Amino acid sequence: MLIDALQYVRPSREIFQQMRLGKMSAVHITVGYHEDFFGVVENLQKWNRWFEDCGDLIVRATTCSDIFAAKAAGKTAILFGLQNPLAIGTDLRRVEVLAQLGIRFCQVTYNQQSMLGAGCFEPHDSGLTVFGREVVDEMNRLGMVIDLSHSGHKTAMDVVAYSKRPVTVTHANPSAWHQAPRNLHHDLLQALADTGGMVGFSLYPHHLKGGSGCSLSDFSQMVADTVQTYGSSMFGIGSDLCQDQPDSVVNWMRNGHWRKTPASLVEFPNSTVWFRDNRNFMGLAAGLGAVGLPAEPVSGILGANWMEFWDKAFKPS
Amino acid sequence: MLIDALQYVRPSREIFQQMRLGKMSAVHITVGYHEDFFGVVENLQKWNRWFEDCGDLIVRATTCSDIFAAKAAGKTAILFGLQNPLAIGTDLRRVEVLAQLGIRFCQVTYNQQSMLGAGCFEPHDSGLTVFGREVVDEMNRLGMVIDLSHSGHKTAMDVVAYSKRPVTVTHANPSAWHQAPRNLHHDLLQALADTGGMVGFSLYPHHLKGGSGCSLSDFSQMVADTVQTYGSSMFGIGSDLCQDQPDSVVNWMRNGHWRKTPASLVEFPNSTVWFRDNRNFMGLAAGLGAVGLPAEPVSGILGANWMEFWDKAFKPS
Repeated sequence: MLIDALQYVRPSREIFQQMRLGKMSAVHITVGYHEDFFGVVENLQKWNRWFEDCGDLIVRATTCSDIFAAKAAGKTAILFGLQNPLAIGTDLRRVEVLAQLGIRFCQVTYNQQSMLGAGCFEPHDSGLTVFGREVVDEMNRLGMVIDLSHSGHKTAMDVVAYSKRPVTVTHANPSAWHQAPRNLHHDLLQALADTGGMVGFSLYPHHLKGGSGCSLSDFSQMVADTVQTYGSSMFGIGSDLCQDQPDSVVNWMRNGHWRKTPASLVEFPNSTVWFRDNRNFMGLAAGLGAVGLPAEPVSGILGANWMEFWDKAFKPS
Repeated sequence: MLIDALQYVRPSREIFQQMRLGKMSAVHITVGYHEDFFGVVENLQKWNRWFEDCGDLIVRATTCSDIFAAKAAGKTAILFGLQNPLAIGTDLRRVEVLAQLGIRFCQVTYNQQSMLGAGCFEPHDSGLTVFGREVVDEMNRLGMVIDLSHSGHKTAMDVVAYSKRPVTVTHANPSAWHQAPRNLHHDLLQALADTGGMVGFSLYPHHLKGGSGCSLSDFSQMVADTVQTYGSSMFGIGSDLCQDQPDSVVNWMRNGHWRKTPASLVEFPNSTVWFRDNRNFMGLAAGLGAVGLPAEPVSGILGANWMEFWDKAFKPS
């Protein structure tokens, strides 16, 4: 059971074939950054067409039963999430409609301030807002997984404390290993550990010590050290794979349409040599094994832990 | 198993209590007349709140399994449909998104011309349009039930001939019994009978001979006669109950926002004395029995026939 809890690959038959070659059981795909409600619907409509055209390779999933069924059928289950709560607007009722459209994950913010809280690039951290608490309650009720990736530290700590159900960071690494605004302070990791939350280790070069030059061994050693501190059952993978996206996309991710003058043009970082696409995912097992992690925590981190977490998390409360 | 294949009741706790007192297993509720996509989403959001607030009485359903589960839990299953394809606009991909939002039924038109075909009040009947054929194909694929209520005769005949799967008229009666634009010509009834389609007998006074004064006996005799001609298995009930709606609603139904000067103000007709609300539904059994219909066709017409039809019809092809 191999699961990647965060990808933003540019969909194509070739990508889906790579998912199958990589024996991926499930991939969580982002369908919203700066999109409003209609923009998310538009993305879902495009994905519906991919499911129709590539139904031999991928299948839409909203439950763990769907994932098991996909695995049995030799297909990769695709789950959907939002990296930004913009599609909710200020209409609390939209959370349930988004869940009914198949959205299983939603971030509290994406880098900047949202209606719910502050992003990790916001100079002042509002913490979880009044409306944010309402949305957390609603996500708790519906079984939509709260994702603190891209949140500011105070906002993230507030959500962990406020949420009645365990929350996640789908894609980030410990700051203790690599200091970056997107990586996670010990206090947050400890709070997640204390509350049954989960974290997906990221393979996005900006989140890795040494960036694109980070070795599988370095990454694996970080995983082993982190697991030793917090326990292995709270960790999975959220690769943040953005394969085949043009650089215009990373500039749009940074600036959306909210900034008049973008700071400067950016490019997607080069991938590491050991994680370029879904076929490399199973190679993580060898890396983790080589630094001494036993088979059971490795299989947990590569998929079983997310399955166990999602199986509870997706159920309405 | 008591099933009403069409209601547009004004939702309230009292109405849902009446559904329970009437032992209704399932009710198909209209969530779109003149609404666009966002308007339908808005209606679904309001219904989500009703499910939350009155979850002891009603439950959202999209499959026959959901209906059986509701019945076992002593609740009434609510299914959703559109009396107008406006929410699709001209975006074929919206059909699947609407299905994913829980829409199980959609009419080809509502009285006037739509993008798909002509309504029964349109002076010239376009028949099924080119886009209409695309939508029928898509509804066939997805297992969304095609409803020819309010269609023009030619359009309806075209759809029966074109659709690869059986189609329905959820709420209307034979014109041979009561001549009305909304009622059904023998040719259409025969075509539906020949193709495994279904018809829900309507209890809306404008569709009844004698209107609000129509007796249960007269209605039941019509049912018995119709069943004798076409067979009983293709019939159910689609009451068109519009309980508790103010007259402003029927004027909006007629005029939407598409007509600058409405012909004249209209009122909802008075209900018959024997069918005022969901508690009266089971009383139809006595009426049908009194005109000599045996128990088996009666239970088929009051619910089992819709269940058998829906069980196949809701499955993607």
